[in-house]
This record gives sequence, structure tokens and C-alpha cells, in this order.
Amino acid sequence: MVEALVQKNSSKILLVVLDGIGGLPVKEGKTELELSHTPNLDALAGRSALGLHVPVDYGITPGSGPGHLGIFGYDPIKHQIGRGILEALGLGLEVRETDITVRGNYATVERVNGRLVVKDRRAGRISTEENRRITAKLSTAIREVAGVEVFFAPGVEHRVALLLRFPYELPEGSDRIGDTDPQREGLEPLRPVGLGEPAQRVAQVVEELLKRVEEELSQEPKANYLLLRGFSQKPKMESFQERFGLKACAVAVYPMYRGLASLVGMELLPFEGQSIQDQIRALRSAWQDYEFFFLHVKKTDSYGEDGNYEGKVKVIEEFDRHLPELLELRPDVLVITGDHSTPSVLKGHSWHPVPVLLHSPYVLGGTSQKFTERECLKGELGIFPASKLVNLMLAHALRLAKFGA
Amino acid sequence: MVEALVQKNSSKILLVVLDGIGGLPVKEGKTELELSHTPNLDALAGRSALGLHVPVDYGITPGSGPGHLGIFGYDPIKHQIGRGILEALGLGLEVRETDITVRGNYATVERVNGRLVVKDRRAGRISTEENRRITAKLSTAIREVAGVEVFFAPGVEHRVALLLRFPYELPEGSDRIGDTDPQREGLEPLRPVGLGEPAQRVAQVVEELLKRVEEELSQEPKANYLLLRGFSQKPKMESFQERFGLKACAVAVYPMYRGLASLVGMELLPFEGQSIQDQIRALRSAWQDYEFFFLHVKKTDSYGEDGNYEGKVKVIEEFDRHLPELLELRPDVLVITGDHSTPSVLKGHSWHPVPVLLHSPYVLGGTSQKFTERECLKGELGIFPASKLVNLMLAHALRLAKFGA
Repeated sequence: MVEALVQKNSSKILLVVLDGIGGLPVKEGKTELELSHTPNLDALAGRSALGLHVPVDYGITPGSGPGHLGIFGYDPIKHQIGRGILEALGLGLEVRETDITVRGNYATVERVNGRLVVKDRRAGRISTEENRRITAKLSTAIREVAGVEVFFAPGVEHRVALLLRFPYELPEGSDRIGDTDPQREGLEPLRPVGLGEPAQRVAQVVEELLKRVEEELSQEPKANYLLLRGFSQKPKMESFQERFGLKACAVAVYPMYRGLASLVGMELLPFEGQSIQDQIRALRSAWQDYEFFFLHVKKTDSYGEDGNYEGKVKVIEEFDRHLPELLELRPDVLVITGDHSTPSVLKGHSWHPVPVLLHSPYVLGGTSQKFTERECLKGELGIFPASKLVNLMLAHALRLAKFGA
Repeated sequence: MVEALVQKNSSKILLVVLDGIGGLPVKEGKTELELSHTPNLDALAGRSALGLHVPVDYGITPGSGPGHLGIFGYDPIKHQIGRGILEALGLGLEVRETDITVRGNYATVERVNGRLVVKDRRAGRISTEENRRITAKLSTAIREVAGVEVFFAPGVEHRVALLLRFPYELPEGSDRIGDTDPQREGLEPLRPVGLGEPAQRVAQVVEELLKRVEEELSQEPKANYLLLRGFSQKPKMESFQERFGLKACAVAVYPMYRGLASLVGMELLPFEGQSIQDQIRALRSAWQDYEFFFLHVKKTDSYGEDGNYEGKVKVIEEFDRHLPELLELRPDVLVITGDHSTPSVLKGHSWHPVPVLLHSPYVLGGTSQKFTERECLKGELGIFPASKLVNLMLAHALRLAKFGA
């Protein structure tokens, strides 16, 4: 509905995602945000609209994909992104409409009475270095199968992402291919079976590719085969610009988040370095060229996942020190939030609503003293679905026309 | 769903709509409600349920139509009211199932090589008085075309509303007629084109009417033609009484709001004068005859639209002085809210959630000190969709049976 009301103006919107920012009490009854010394965030919170967003649904813990889709304004239940796509994005592969992606495991197989049998589904959990060597070998040896370009990207231990680039845009349903991983040792790898004609065409290429892989890896003692799971193609999504009329760019260090931004058509700003400082420099230099800016800060989540609340606090405090530089850019709307919560006590993503701060001239303000879970509960935005955040950003940027007379 | 649970009793519900009541900080960090001296509202707030409603959706700024439909319990996205209907309602025309309404512009046209060409789409923005004279002339001259009654109502400057009353109830889709306004000077007015048979029948009448209009206005120097936009018929809606079992009436001064109330089947109380005092007198005299009372106070919005926060404050304070008279009526449920926010700083409607006060014996109360945006945030109703307000009113009037056993 909101799409029909979008109107243009010269406003600029800055969305800062502190990955996994939400937390739970971890020390002296305080959350990571409450333990942090954040004079700049505190001051801003006092004159901003606060609230919390529910990323997917009550009680649902989102992965990075659904978490980001929600705050980008895409219903994460309607737009489900295949694991293969996320794996490929996370390993830095660019995904197009012509591509099929799939997660792979290096595995150990042997011939028993002429039949291939899986001895170890994870090839003895080979080291990541070993993986890199083998993947490089495959990448050099197999660049193309039956006119289809092939890309491999090494993951951690036995994990690998595979991307097939067809010479034409793939019709919907091309990724309806069953896993080849039999899920148990002692069984034969399954044949890739396609459901429907477009998927069958892809499955044939995969079958041919697996023969080539078997040949190339035949001398490997452990990783002598590849099991595949989660075939997926790029989901059909209207771009962020088409839907919301915003020329958008992303400043993210990690491939997964660059990939998610590019899935919805955001342009990726190139920049040197990996620090928040470096990211802000990139923002500043592109400030005239875009209307919407997505700044992704990863480390809050990483430390949360490690259960290292002190690390998370440090990243929050580092971000706080840089906040004045963001304010100097004078965004018309500044939103600071996360894609989900990552409480250190849970050492992982969680379902808890995520603090949101929205700064604009058109807010009540004065409801809260800090940018924390408990102070956000007092805020004027209440607890709302993440996919409505775009509405609020557009409204506060005066980019939505009145609905009805 | 709620409709199936409706049960009867003798309770009375009073809904007061202070149009555009919600605001933003405008002076010393205070909103219009916060700047108002409202001892009666303050006292009532302390023993009522407070909250805020979202009129249409997060970030969406509603017009008066969607704003009121929401608080009347009708999903404003599902029930969209055509511009022609609202224009006609606003100008005091009553709209029936037999009617087609449309917005008109007086325009200046001339014949060039036998062809009609638009010289000025707004007839030089003639004065409202001039408009009244011309519209009166048309109203006298053209009362009927091809068996269809014709009504004209003058608007501001070059604007006019037109209503065609057919001798039979119009099937759905009768209003699917393209605008005749070519949107640019130098072009021919467009023919009214109907999509589908019912609309084609209406379009034929419109075409004939436009010929008559051209004849009647041929001697006018400026306003010698009529361009039409936004053909619309009365939307199909179950009445308020059918849905919620409440015999309902409206006490509203302005035609638009009387029209909106009548769209959902509320009866319009006749009354003398225009003041809140006059409206309360009307309420009192009809108190025995209805179960649901909609009292509309317009001026809060008007002053907000003008950016005149002092005017808005005065209307709020005036309402506060009359509040004891409303309480003397002893409604079982009293709700005070708005159809949307109209912050003086924005000089227009806005998307901000709207304060709600619900007074009944069955509330927690004690959460808040005043009826303001920020105090309502602390209230027991939270932030909720406007279209759920009816549920809350019915429930507190003990008019909803238990759902399930």
C-alpha cells in the first residue's frame, strides 16, 4: 500500500544497523546497551522517537537474511531466501537472475561393488586451509559444464558454496532440486532430481558437474566428493528503489550483508579498511549521490555470538564515539537499530524485540533517557513489526502522500 | 469476527472525535495538548484507560475519510472512498446507492477548427462567489438528463461537485469512468469512457450532460465548461448498526463528517448553531433514542492545518470546559480521540498515532496524569490499530459475548 503513496523530495535517510544489538541482562542486571557508556546516544535518545521492532514475528529468532529483509521493508515470511543464496552471498559470490546456488559439503566416498557409498559426510571435517586448497583446485579445473559457468567458494572446514551461472535468465522453479546429501553414512549419494522441466534442465547440469568433481578429487584421501543441499535461485523481489523511490546504497564490510543489500538492489559503496571510521568516510564521500544509506556494523553481533558481552559493549561505545560524525552529515531521518537481538547470555541470535531510535524533527521525543531495551519500551513508537520501519522512515522524511481525502 | 459476538444491552456509548487532536512539540517542547489547561480531562485521564491508535498503518497519513472509517470499525484500506464521494459529502450532498458523484473544475474552452480545446483548466480560478452564481444557474437549468436527476454543489474557486441520481440502484463498477480532464491546456477535453457495461451506461448520460453544460455556459467569459475527475459511487458497506448492533447517531457540524457518518448508516441529529454547546444540547435531547453517539469537533483540526497552535489549544480548553456536561449524560463508555493527528508544526494531517481516552468502570486506570500524547504512551491500551477501537468500546459496554467455550 505504502508504495502507491511514495513521493519524491530531496531528503536523505540514514539507516544504521548495529547487528544483533538487542540484549538481555548479563551483568548486575544490565544488558549490553545498559552497561555501555554512550553519552552521544543518550543525548540523541532524549530527542528522538524510540521503540522496538519485532523482526519476523513474536518468538521467532531470525537469521541474518530475514532480519535484514524485514528492516528493508520486505515481509520476511513472504520473501524467503534459500540457504544456498545466503551461503553464496556470505562467501562473497554475487548472485544474478541467471544463477543457481547451493551449499556443499566435502565428503569421503568409496566404490563398493561399483556403487558409490558415503563413508564420511564431512570428509573428517577437513581444515579450512585444506578446504581452500581443494576448492582452488576445483575452481581451476572446472570453470564450465555444458555451457554453464561454475564458481566455487570455500567456507569453513568442509563447507563450500557452489554457483552455476546459466547463459539465460532462469524461470521460476529452476531451483526445485532435491538434495544429493543422503543425510546418513553408508548410503549412496542421491541423484539430483529436478521437479518440473526448468529444474530438470538444471539437475542434468548438476549431475554432469558431480561426475567432473568426482574425477578431479579422485586422488584426495578425504575430500573426494561433494554433497549438495539447498539449491536456490535469486528470489524475485521488486527493488528497494522501485518500491520506495529511494536511490539506495550500502556500506557494509561483510559479504553476507553486502549480498543482502544487493539482493534488494542497493548499490554497494566501495571503501578501504574495515573500521566504523572507514565506513563513515565512505558514507561521507557518497552523501550527495544517494537518498538512502544503509550502514552495517557487524561486530556487535559477533561478540554477542561469542558470549563476550565486554566485546559487545566496546563496539557499542566505539559506535557512540563516531555518532557525532554521522549527525554532522545532517540526515533528515536517522534510524539506529539492529536486524535482531544477540544477547551474550544466549550466545546467538534471539527472538527479542530490537531497540529502534528514529531521529527527525517530527517526533515527540522526551520519553526516554538512553538507547536501551528498557528505555525504548517507554518510547513513542511502541513495539511494531520490523517491516513497518520503512513506512516510518519514509513518513518522517515527508516522502509519503496523504492516503485518501 | 467481533460481529458474531455482538449482544444487546441498554448501555450507551459516546465517541467524541476531536478532529486532528494529536500533535507534536510546538512551544517549549510541548504539544498542543500539553500546552492546554484541561483540569477536567486531566482528572478523567487519571481514572480512564489511555493509549494511542494508528489510523491506517504505521507512517500513513490519513485523509478525513480513512481516518473516520478506521475509528468506526471499517478497515480503511479495504473500504476506499472515491474522491467524488468525499467531495459531494463535503459540499453537503447526500449520497445514495443510486448515485454517481464526481469532482468538477470549471474551465475555459474554445472552439478551434470545430474542435473544443482547453484554454484554462481552472477558468482563471474564478472567485467562489462567481462559482456560486454559475452553479446556481446550472442547477436551475439542468435538473435532469435522460431520466437521471442532476445535482450541482459549488465548492471553492473553480471547484464543483456533481451528483447524478439514477432511477435504480447502480451495480458495482458503475463508476469505472475515466476522467474528462486532459490534465494539460491546449488539449481536447476527454470523452467520458466507461469500462464495462454499467459504467458505459453512466458515461453516456455524462456525455449528454456535458453537452447541456456547454450550451448553458456558452455565454460565460471564463467558466464555459466543466472538466470531471474521480467518478465514484457509494461504496458497499454493511451499516454500523448491522455490524455492531448499535443504533447510532452523529452530531457533526461540517458536511464532510455528517456525510461520513451517514455512509455507515448513522442517523444525523439536526441541531441549531455550530458550537460545542449546541452540539451537546443536541446530544442531550436525543440521549434516550440511541445507543451510540458520534460527536465531531472540527476546529482542533482547522487550527492545526493553519499552524495556529494557540487556536488549537483554545478549542481543546473549550472542549475541556464542556466535558462535565458530557459526563452528566452518564455514558457507559466514553471515548475521546481523534481521526488522525494534525500537528501545528506540520500544518496538515500526519501519520502520528492518535491519543485515545476510554472511560468505563472496567479499566485499570491510574497510569497517566493527563490526556496528552506522552501520557497516553503510558496507558493500558498501548498503540493499536484504529479499526480495533470499536471492539474496545463494545467490550467495555459489555456488548460482546465470550468467544468460544
